[in-house]
Amino acid sequence: MALETVSRARCFGGTQLTYRYASIETGTLMRFAAFIPPQAEHRTVPVVWFLSGLTCTEENFTVKAGAQRVAAELGLMLIVPDTSPRGEGVPDDPDGAYDFGLGAGFYLDATIAPWARNYRMRSYIETELPALVAESLPADLSRQGIMGHSMGGHGAITIALRNPGRFAAVSAFAPICSPIRCPWGQKALLGYLGPDRAAWRTYDSCALIDDGARLPSLLVDQGTADNFLQEQLRPELLEEACRNAGIPLTLRRQEGYDHSYFFIATFIADHLRHHAAALS
Amino acid sequence: MALETVSRARCFGGTQLTYRYASIETGTLMRFAAFIPPQAEHRTVPVVWFLSGLTCTEENFTVKAGAQRVAAELGLMLIVPDTSPRGEGVPDDPDGAYDFGLGAGFYLDATIAPWARNYRMRSYIETELPALVAESLPADLSRQGIMGHSMGGHGAITIALRNPGRFAAVSAFAPICSPIRCPWGQKALLGYLGPDRAAWRTYDSCALIDDGARLPSLLVDQGTADNFLQEQLRPELLEEACRNAGIPLTLRRQEGYDHSYFFIATFIADHLRHHAAALS
Repeated sequence: MALETVSRARCFGGTQLTYRYASIETGTLMRFAAFIPPQAEHRTVPVVWFLSGLTCTEENFTVKAGAQRVAAELGLMLIVPDTSPRGEGVPDDPDGAYDFGLGAGFYLDATIAPWARNYRMRSYIETELPALVAESLPADLSRQGIMGHSMGGHGAITIALRNPGRFAAVSAFAPICSPIRCPWGQKALLGYLGPDRAAWRTYDSCALIDDGARLPSLLVDQGTADNFLQEQLRPELLEEACRNAGIPLTLRRQEGYDHSYFFIATFIADHLRHHAAALS
Repeated sequence: MALETVSRARCFGGTQLTYRYASIETGTLMRFAAFIPPQAEHRTVPVVWFLSGLTCTEENFTVKAGAQRVAAELGLMLIVPDTSPRGEGVPDDPDGAYDFGLGAGFYLDATIAPWARNYRMRSYIETELPALVAESLPADLSRQGIMGHSMGGHGAITIALRNPGRFAAVSAFAPICSPIRCPWGQKALLGYLGPDRAAWRTYDSCALIDDGARLPSLLVDQGTADNFLQEQLRPELLEEACRNAGIPLTLRRQEGYDHSYFFIATFIADHLRHHAAALS
């Protein structure tokens, strides 16, 4: 798999890159962003993954979160994937809805036609992309953390739950806490996986925890002025699942913050320091 | 003049707003962004203006520069105007070029038809918008700084030179240093002002300095990997003008940085601290 450099810019003494390559999993050209901190000139560095939310590409977090400043200080590589396959022939929501199809891969492997061919974001993020990063970049994959926002918070937590021991730290901003119990999630799971709800549980943080998966700890920030809080995100369900399972959850309700990148930018430094502490 | 709030988000303990109002100068609905730091809950705060470059609106700096973190810490209000009038009936470059018309107001008052009616960004920024900010926001306009990027660096420096004593600090990222001597500037000045080059000098930092205008000091960052450095930006001309006039110029050539917001984000904290020191 040959990486093509789409863009490259100096940033906080490190390098911000966008790469593109032909993914076998999705059958498309996939882009991802990588921030290489200055410390990587001399050694491999730990990796923190950031999974983005609905409608985003690899660009939103990269240009809006202000994460590079702290990643450069802490010596963390940031890997930011796109949120779905894209390109000619990739099916999209028939009504052009923002919450299904392009920009809405939900970090799962679809099993229903016509989605199953390209919508393989789970295997892409869990298997293919880590191998590519290990092979191509100065990354120490024995030290990884994962975080995400909204749909990407769901992605980060479920991927960590399904891969015990892989991530030293897991955190999320305003995650979708239980896709099987919210409209965004139900639409996606039904569309990509079909009506058998047993198959949905492997893509639901709370169900995975109820079924025995564990994390050493979990940090979540949630704005109290987030429009999606009550209907879609439902952090109280994650609180309950973690409490029942004895998973130490730090859930910070941030007064007055909404669902935007202004919220993420405000607290990204806390999250990166949390990850760095676990990775050092 | 009634301000309409277009958007509002909590950010670093302060508030990031986008406003819209009917400008008399431009004859259009003008948007601008304002970051109100937490200190403004209890008192008026100093104001730093940021003028953006070609193709930008008020949004680019607001979402990409990461300025709110430091502005919140230092108690600075940030005011970020749009770069041109916009809307139905506002003329644009006949070829749709990015460097003239919409997004390319060059911070001047046009005198040539059809531009003269709406393209009044000089009067808008120098006179109308400050009055609106003073009347509507918790701003202390006895303490102001101004900065900008590229075309906005040109705007910041020329506005400061034409308004001696108004700004305690002036700085720029990769400014267009002498519009009368670069293709971007020549196209804009000819198009908006006509062929009489004497009229151009009031919109040229170097010419204003040569003609006697002064600044107490000037901070400029310029990336050495900036694609526009040699043909359009020409910092050596500003260096020469400042040297001849005895204006203390700190010109930092930043190795490997380009013209992007990754460059601005890397050094915005330095600039804001420079402004805060002068404003305190």
